[in-house]
Amino acid sequence: MEAFGEESDDERRWEESVEDLVPGWLSEEELAGARARVPMLYVEALPVRVDANGRVSQVGLLLRGSPTTGRMTRSLVSGRVLHGEELRDALMRHLEKDLGATAFPVVPTSMVPAAVAEYFPWPTGRFQDWRQHAVALAFVVPVSGECQPRQDALELSWLTPEEAVSEEITAELEGGRASLLRQLLHHADAI
Amino acid sequence: MEAFGEESDDERRWEESVEDLVPGWLSEEELAGARARVPMLYVEALPVRVDANGRVSQVGLLLRGSPTTGRMTRSLVSGRVLHGEELRDALMRHLEKDLGATAFPVVPTSMVPAAVAEYFPWPTGRFQDWRQHAVALAFVVPVSGECQPRQDALELSWLTPEEAVSEEITAELEGGRASLLRQLLHHADAI
Amino acid sequence: MEAFGEESDDERRWEESVEDLVPGWLSEEELAGARARVPMLYVEALPVRVDANGRVSQVGLLLRGSPTTGRMTRSLVSGRVLHGEELRDALMRHLEKDLGATAFPVVPTSMVPAAVAEYFPWPTGRFQDWRQHAVALAFVVPVSGECQPRQDALELSWLTPEEAVSEEITAELEGGRASLLRQLLHHADAI
Amino acid sequence: MEAFGEESDDERRWEESVEDLVPGWLSEEELAGARARVPMLYVEALPVRVDANGRVSQVGLLLRGSPTTGRMTRSLVSGRVLHGEELRDALMRHLEKDLGATAFPVVPTSMVPAAVAEYFPWPTGRFQDWRQHAVALAFVVPVSGECQPRQDALELSWLTPEEAVSEEITAELEGGRASLLRQLLHHADAI
Repeated sequence: MEAFGEESDDERRWEESVEDLVPGWLSEEELAGARARVPMLYVEALPVRVDANGRVSQVGLLLRGSPTTGRMTRSLVSGRVLHGEELRDALMRHLEKDLGATAFPVVPTSMVPAAVAEYFPWPTGRFQDWRQHAVALAFVVPVSGECQPRQDALELSWLTPEEAVSEEITAELEGGRASLLRQLLHHADAI
Repeated sequence: MEAFGEESDDERRWEESVEDLVPGWLSEEELAGARARVPMLYVEALPVRVDANGRVSQVGLLLRGSPTTGRMTRSLVSGRVLHGEELRDALMRHLEKDLGATAFPVVPTSMVPAAVAEYFPWPTGRFQDWRQHAVALAFVVPVSGECQPRQDALELSWLTPEEAVSEEITAELEGGRASLLRQLLHHADAI
Repeated sequence: MEAFGEESDDERRWEESVEDLVPGWLSEEELAGARARVPMLYVEALPVRVDANGRVSQVGLLLRGSPTTGRMTRSLVSGRVLHGEELRDALMRHLEKDLGATAFPVVPTSMVPAAVAEYFPWPTGRFQDWRQHAVALAFVVPVSGECQPRQDALELSWLTPEEAVSEEITAELEGGRASLLRQLLHHADAI
Repeated sequence: MEAFGEESDDERRWEESVEDLVPGWLSEEELAGARARVPMLYVEALPVRVDANGRVSQVGLLLRGSPTTGRMTRSLVSGRVLHGEELRDALMRHLEKDLGATAFPVVPTSMVPAAVAEYFPWPTGRFQDWRQHAVALAFVVPVSGECQPRQDALELSWLTPEEAVSEEITAELEGGRASLLRQLLHHADAI
């Protein structure tokens, strides 16, 4: 969950460490410059457990406690597409970062997304991201393995589709993502 | 491949044997009656091999020799949706029938299809099926296991996307399915 | 709204009058026979008003009073695809039947639907239709003209997207269509 | 056609004139900086003529003569999404720029695209754009009015779907757009 919502120190540290290695990774200054000028391209994924015939049984939501306020927020897997990176590679990279190396996500064969979310740094519109204008291509991604978020501050909780769209849970989703979650679960015939 | 194209004796025999067991299975008379009166609902699947990030590397096409003429024809996995059967269950049933029990297909989480094919028993339009008016919801389905068609007359050949859309191969696809194959491969960013 | 929900006498009478003219139209006996044996193919449409850039401003829901109980029910435009009829022609036919000749609906260029709804004559699953197993391909359809339902019992009311998904309104949608309405409005970025 | 392919002097001049007016418009230096660092977000549209039921009868392709070489190239309507701009507003802006004020395009209600095209400044992959990494959300857009490209160098020619995918025409499409054109026409059931 590189980018939407508050960036923890852990996350920033991890980002810095790969900065020299990954082409397309930007310094904070460069990223701020680009963010002020063009829409940023993101991918988002809703991890799900499915039965043998593809029916969604459980929904995975990331849970993070703010180190400063202690407030819990939930999120989908989400992150920026780097310069030179294919969408499906960005999707896999963020799935591995947030779910660990043994989640075995099934990245879709088509990059036509299940939903498109337009985030703006102002309160109008369906989605908000106070840092930037971002456009996210969102997918439902079945995972069959064990999920172990790599960052200490992060947890993954599995919920039934009904639990996931309950008021209690959706209140912890930021930036309008409750609407995105519902759209993805409708698309997957799960609610 | 229960229904499009010529039905071999083998296939008919298999159908008869399950007739008493599977609710929604019809006698030949009943099926003919329904076929003459309403559009028949089908599912079709293009089996593909994908890499870890969902990129299509190979395409599976079914190959069948006509017992009478010896002519070879190719096809996608395809079959009728039975009364009372969910689309994803029909999709899995036909995948298992045509690819065997160890193919491990990944049925999509969404039943919004990659393509919709309308077959008519006359030559106008994109798709033809001389026996009936059929509407097929078509999907791209990654398979990770071993494929062994259950019927003797049937073979599965794996081709690169480029080979699959070559003139030589598409000439063996019937009913306009060359166009459907291309649409599905475009959808999967494979051609 | 030929088929889902209660069929009024008016509707039945209209159906009978076209029976001899429209190929593919069935007698009640024939229709009952087919319904018991194969899934019935439907199209559904959510009429919307859009601004110049395609943004949904209003949603049209059909309102019908039961002649016997007086109870009000709401519905989308919906109806069966006839034998030999193309999906887009069925969509236009039902739009004209339910919205009148001057609604000027914009039928989508693609028949890949915004949602697929599987109705079963039992309470499990997302959608129910007590008369039959039906599979509906559902679309969002902008209309720019005047809408005048042709049937006396029918009214069209225009609501904002927020009003349309309010509890008061969705409670009047039958067969699980509240979920379908939400899916279509999410797809159109309207909620 | 602001961005893909060669930018004519006319185009550059037009861009400069609106630079001060349109928020999100960048100087050449700023644009070059962003292009080197993050993927650029584009929208593309294939203008089509449709019959009353949404069936595609004609396809509009932009034709441009290079002022230097005289070589003709064809393209779809295409352009960058500005910072702070909604996708549908970007789509309409580029449609108006390329087709004129009286084309009356019907922008789709959903921003889930018919195709996603990933352009890279190197020859691998389906699509190439030598100037940048760009990701385009592509749509089929019916137009009902008169089309008059605003720029002198630009012409719009209407072709049947079959003509549009002929070798003669597709050879004039750059950057792999022949594949995108076919994908969009398959999606619209037009080839």
